[in-house]
Amino acid sequence: MLKKIHTSIDTLYPEMVNIRRYLHQYPELSFHETKTAKYIADFYEELGLPYETKVGGNGVIATLKGGKPGKTVALRADFDGLPIQDEKDVPYKSKVDGVMHACGHDGHTATLLILAKVMKSYQEELPGTIVFLHQHAEEYAPGGAKPIVDSGAIDHVDAVFGTHLWATLPLGVLQTSKNVFMAGADRFEITIQGQGGHGAYPHETKDAIVIASEVISQLQQIVSRRLDPLETAVVTVGTFHAGNSFNIIADKATLVGTVRYLNADIQELVINEMEKIIKGTCVSNDASYTFNYLKGYPPLINHEREAALVLEASKEIEEIHTAEEVIPVMGGEDFAYYTMKKPGAYFFTGAHKEGNPYPHHHPKFDIDERALPIAAKTLIQAYFAYQS
Amino acid sequence: MLKKIHTSIDTLYPEMVNIRRYLHQYPELSFHETKTAKYIADFYEELGLPYETKVGGNGVIATLKGGKPGKTVALRADFDGLPIQDEKDVPYKSKVDGVMHACGHDGHTATLLILAKVMKSYQEELPGTIVFLHQHAEEYAPGGAKPIVDSGAIDHVDAVFGTHLWATLPLGVLQTSKNVFMAGADRFEITIQGQGGHGAYPHETKDAIVIASEVISQLQQIVSRRLDPLETAVVTVGTFHAGNSFNIIADKATLVGTVRYLNADIQELVINEMEKIIKGTCVSNDASYTFNYLKGYPPLINHEREAALVLEASKEIEEIHTAEEVIPVMGGEDFAYYTMKKPGAYFFTGAHKEGNPYPHHHPKFDIDERALPIAAKTLIQAYFAYQS
Amino acid sequence: MLKKIHTSIDTLYPEMVNIRRYLHQYPELSFHETKTAKYIADFYEELGLPYETKVGGNGVIATLKGGKPGKTVALRADFDGLPIQDEKDVPYKSKVDGVMHACGHDGHTATLLILAKVMKSYQEELPGTIVFLHQHAEEYAPGGAKPIVDSGAIDHVDAVFGTHLWATLPLGVLQTSKNVFMAGADRFEITIQGQGGHGAYPHETKDAIVIASEVISQLQQIVSRRLDPLETAVVTVGTFHAGNSFNIIADKATLVGTVRYLNADIQELVINEMEKIIKGTCVSNDASYTFNYLKGYPPLINHEREAALVLEASKEIEEIHTAEEVIPVMGGEDFAYYTMKKPGAYFFTGAHKEGNPYPHHHPKFDIDERALPIAAKTLIQAYFAYQS
Amino acid sequence: MLKKIHTSIDTLYPEMVNIRRYLHQYPELSFHETKTAKYIADFYEELGLPYETKVGGNGVIATLKGGKPGKTVALRADFDGLPIQDEKDVPYKSKVDGVMHACGHDGHTATLLILAKVMKSYQEELPGTIVFLHQHAEEYAPGGAKPIVDSGAIDHVDAVFGTHLWATLPLGVLQTSKNVFMAGADRFEITIQGQGGHGAYPHETKDAIVIASEVISQLQQIVSRRLDPLETAVVTVGTFHAGNSFNIIADKATLVGTVRYLNADIQELVINEMEKIIKGTCVSNDASYTFNYLKGYPPLINHEREAALVLEASKEIEEIHTAEEVIPVMGGEDFAYYTMKKPGAYFFTGAHKEGNPYPHHHPKFDIDERALPIAAKTLIQAYFAYQS
Repeated sequence: MLKKIHTSIDTLYPEMVNIRRYLHQYPELSFHETKTAKYIADFYEELGLPYETKVGGNGVIATLKGGKPGKTVALRADFDGLPIQDEKDVPYKSKVDGVMHACGHDGHTATLLILAKVMKSYQEELPGTIVFLHQHAEEYAPGGAKPIVDSGAIDHVDAVFGTHLWATLPLGVLQTSKNVFMAGADRFEITIQGQGGHGAYPHETKDAIVIASEVISQLQQIVSRRLDPLETAVVTVGTFHAGNSFNIIADKATLVGTVRYLNADIQELVINEMEKIIKGTCVSNDASYTFNYLKGYPPLINHEREAALVLEASKEIEEIHTAEEVIPVMGGEDFAYYTMKKPGAYFFTGAHKEGNPYPHHHPKFDIDERALPIAAKTLIQAYFAYQS
Repeated sequence: MLKKIHTSIDTLYPEMVNIRRYLHQYPELSFHETKTAKYIADFYEELGLPYETKVGGNGVIATLKGGKPGKTVALRADFDGLPIQDEKDVPYKSKVDGVMHACGHDGHTATLLILAKVMKSYQEELPGTIVFLHQHAEEYAPGGAKPIVDSGAIDHVDAVFGTHLWATLPLGVLQTSKNVFMAGADRFEITIQGQGGHGAYPHETKDAIVIASEVISQLQQIVSRRLDPLETAVVTVGTFHAGNSFNIIADKATLVGTVRYLNADIQELVINEMEKIIKGTCVSNDASYTFNYLKGYPPLINHEREAALVLEASKEIEEIHTAEEVIPVMGGEDFAYYTMKKPGAYFFTGAHKEGNPYPHHHPKFDIDERALPIAAKTLIQAYFAYQS
Repeated sequence: MLKKIHTSIDTLYPEMVNIRRYLHQYPELSFHETKTAKYIADFYEELGLPYETKVGGNGVIATLKGGKPGKTVALRADFDGLPIQDEKDVPYKSKVDGVMHACGHDGHTATLLILAKVMKSYQEELPGTIVFLHQHAEEYAPGGAKPIVDSGAIDHVDAVFGTHLWATLPLGVLQTSKNVFMAGADRFEITIQGQGGHGAYPHETKDAIVIASEVISQLQQIVSRRLDPLETAVVTVGTFHAGNSFNIIADKATLVGTVRYLNADIQELVINEMEKIIKGTCVSNDASYTFNYLKGYPPLINHEREAALVLEASKEIEEIHTAEEVIPVMGGEDFAYYTMKKPGAYFFTGAHKEGNPYPHHHPKFDIDERALPIAAKTLIQAYFAYQS
Repeated sequence: MLKKIHTSIDTLYPEMVNIRRYLHQYPELSFHETKTAKYIADFYEELGLPYETKVGGNGVIATLKGGKPGKTVALRADFDGLPIQDEKDVPYKSKVDGVMHACGHDGHTATLLILAKVMKSYQEELPGTIVFLHQHAEEYAPGGAKPIVDSGAIDHVDAVFGTHLWATLPLGVLQTSKNVFMAGADRFEITIQGQGGHGAYPHETKDAIVIASEVISQLQQIVSRRLDPLETAVVTVGTFHAGNSFNIIADKATLVGTVRYLNADIQELVINEMEKIIKGTCVSNDASYTFNYLKGYPPLINHEREAALVLEASKEIEEIHTAEEVIPVMGGEDFAYYTMKKPGAYFFTGAHKEGNPYPHHHPKFDIDERALPIAAKTLIQAYFAYQS
């Protein structure tokens, strides 16, 4: 049956591409993906599969109960876009100003929808139950996975698998890990409250831009000096906004950023050191601050057995020539919540597009669409492997 | 006649306040003051004085030719607002979101309009010609004064006087200088071009926020280390904007600011040192930059004789109890262009509002409106002093 | 025989302590350990074992050829001290001002000397040959190990074992690794050449202290921003010296420090980024620099089989209750050169002294001397294990 | 008589040069100038003038009571050297390693000694009393002037004059001011106490070098941001010393420097802001500090009448072609204490040596010795001017 399924997937490749390109043109920001959710729901409506909408927010979950007994396995695809201006020169370029599918979630969605369509035709012979888990808001903590898990939507599920199309990995390569696979990812916001005033009279002010720049400079020491060199962490300030006019000293600066880490014990240390630095810099400058630290996705830890199943399953996919265990990746993923609740594994499907060197979250990011059927085949293969 | 003029001004005080408060509610940004210009023009239209509009941009100039021979003297008032959100709790609070008369130019305008109305009634007895010079765009270089001067509008004028309502100076105090009175004021824009990317992979990027923060930090050295301590300069970065998302490393940071100086020789030194710092920081980080330095208003240098006339004239104003020569003020003023072209003097009219400690350009800035008639009286007194 | 050897070692414990304490009072700096070398040579002279002095510098190598055939195995102990002022309050405190055995090399030496004395009495029954390798200058690159290896002194040796008494590890614990055990350790020296002058005239100078401080600040970015977060490196500036007088601006600043890394590929990246930062900062300040980077000890990589032998051997030592494989340690060790040339393994012998929390290289560093016989027993046990 | 005195001075020019060159070869550090003091005392002994030694430390004061009535006027010369290595290539180069007359005090002393010798021969005709005030320790606060004043040594004096040979001013030029002539000059010492440790384990330490570098960087903001741009101040860190070994993280860093200011009100502001910065940086880093601020010489304020006398007197000196009033000089001078106690004036005597561009306190500093007789003539001319 699996060979036939592979062929069915290949047959529907053009539709897969159409769906992905359509979604690519109409990306939506995290927590605002109502049109995409409706698109997905409409697809299942037309396909005739039972589905739920608004699961934990904008999530959509469809269920295919097979004709034979077996386990219930969720396959997950996320579907939100990013606040990035699409700078690619392709016909399917984003039509939404300032929003872009710069991480490939459009591809994830197309993969899962077509896989559902294919598997529908094998329903009678199918052992177990496939849960098609379309998750919103992966890009923006607290994310969509946690409310979906909290809603009880995977309580009845035995295992969860998911994949990410990976633009910097060659087609035909699969990567996963039997332990920590992706980093913990948090979000923070710092505001420095100085005192504004005329640009010509600095002594009557507390220059929030100078103060915040000092904070940025000193934050570098957390990783360079205050963390065990054998531990892994990243402290990134992604945005710095302060001031409205060239000749008015800014009274306030706002810094927003992310912290990544692999070892849960580090999180508190980083938070404490950040606060110490912010506080001290404000003491130096007689300024005040707020520091909001939103604990985001925890490190994604694959289950050993399920990761092994994925590696095993990949041998059955003709297009996959390399399947490897790798060291952890620093990006965060709220798939972490699924493997905290249930057995499961997450893996990367090589999707590098020749001639396009741009990484995820880049304005010129793109993927090789031939990776979509490979992802679909690996997911369903893992599903079957899990049944036996 | 002067006593009578003073009384006339006092009589029209309520109208003066009305005009100021009306303008206060409808501020316009520099170079966009079309409605304010129309308001001024309409006033002269109704008053029956000849006037020109669109002088050097949005400037409006009305002329009152006296019945007796004499010199032609321009009295100047500027009329633009600032990109600041009005945070005062008063009935005449700005009705334009994000724009505010936070520097008192509304008061300057009301002062000059009412003075014109008063002097119209003395036209026959008046020696010489009063030029009511309403200037746009004082707050934003290259400003309105230069195009007005370049348009030839003051070629026929013998002298120019002007005043600034000064919120941090008590009512009844006048300040001026017989030499450098206000600083040179320039504008610069720096963009740091790094390389963006995922917040978890700093090594694949060039973090524009970190680089720009280094630039900010090093810019402090220009005044602290590279300038003769006996010289006076200020380098202020007023805005710092970079990044769109907390987990994307910003590829670009934009810094906009101002340089102030009292000695024209310093300007080039500051520019050179700024470029050196920006360039070196980019070398350190393998980044690139643009640096646009817009030379703004030169130092405002009063003419000795005209400044003396102002000080002398102030003795005739009952409400002025103190008239003093002061050291230079660091703020820039494009009135500088008038005194580069013609004899003239600029002075500050004390306008501190009791209980309001906020300086110019502050969201809660306000003035004591009783300063308006004092300003009007001093200007006209200086006009008469110049005639003799 | 081994049980008897253990007993013999225990019997000589008081002499072991005496030797260690004597050496502790007379520490010598790396490459200047002539008296210590003589002390060691005298010991072998008296013991009646053949020995060579001045091996690769101040090294001393004694040889005990057993009565039975077998392999030749070197056991290594280093014997240099550190430029640290001893601040302990003990009778055996350093008598040399500013020099201290703050890393336990005195203990290493005492361990090996007494082991030699013990084994001499078992010479006839001994299979193989023990090479007692007393190495100078471990603390200061290029170190003593490399010239000893280059001198051919271990060419005839089959394997090398060595241990470090480890003050932060409890007595009875042994740690080693079957792969990377200790970091690569380099040394660098940066001089910033500015321009000196009177402290009151900064604008006529280029302040080397301000410039070097900027370099320090930016060096933090190498680990925080420019290195793959999954890689491990440390960039430490250990000394900063500049200036002779409070009111003279320093023309020159000298920074000396160390770089540590686990992956040899990182070394060049760190060097390049350091140079970029130093160069850019000099461009910012119109200053010049020298940058000498001395590649020091490479990462110490244990051989799998020999490390396994050590772990196995430790089970025979009564006092060792825990023997474990650990993640790499960031300190460098020129033992690395021995395992690059010959099979071998290095391990840590727990030597924590109760109530003394101070780490290696601390002015109050000390060890529990009961670790010395444990080290001796483990080394000889590994020797025998290797013979079989 | 004055013409004759001028001629006498010129006649003794060779001896003046000899004395200056002798002293140049044997400089002594501030407060350690015992040999120089003895040299001066011996000179007066031989000359037969009454003198006192150990005045307020190493000071020497000789008195020449004229045969005619008149006022008592002190002429002051300082005689200490600096901790600088002489790098000139001249026969009279310093013979004391690391010590140098790099500020011209050797010249001051030679000038005053020869002037005494000349005036001795005019004793009978001389109106008033000349006090030859040889002061120690001008270079190092608290200096020699204050204890001399406190000792009562100038209580009977009517006025004090003094000059500095000025290497950057052409021969024949005299400069002084009728008000603030030289800056206030203070000394500070900051120690940062972090926590030392092994260079490979930064997370177990508090890196004093990184912390102190942050302090240096932020200190720049005092002048650039926290001081009124119209005020004048300099904050210079002259020495930075930390660490003993490249691979040990320094536990302590010591910064020593100077603050200069023209307005006494600024002093407290600078101290407060310095402390704020040091404290805040220690909060950021969980470190501690000491901050010792030694208030040094206050601004040197000339008395108007006495400065006018000097300017007047200079017209009688043939070699002086230019005598000018100038803006304040940033260097400190403990001559300030004399004019706080008595009327007086200090001036600069142009002493630029052609082809030698090096300023005071530079290792290649030198003067044109022809300035010495000019200084002598100006001092005695001012003396006579003061009598009338």
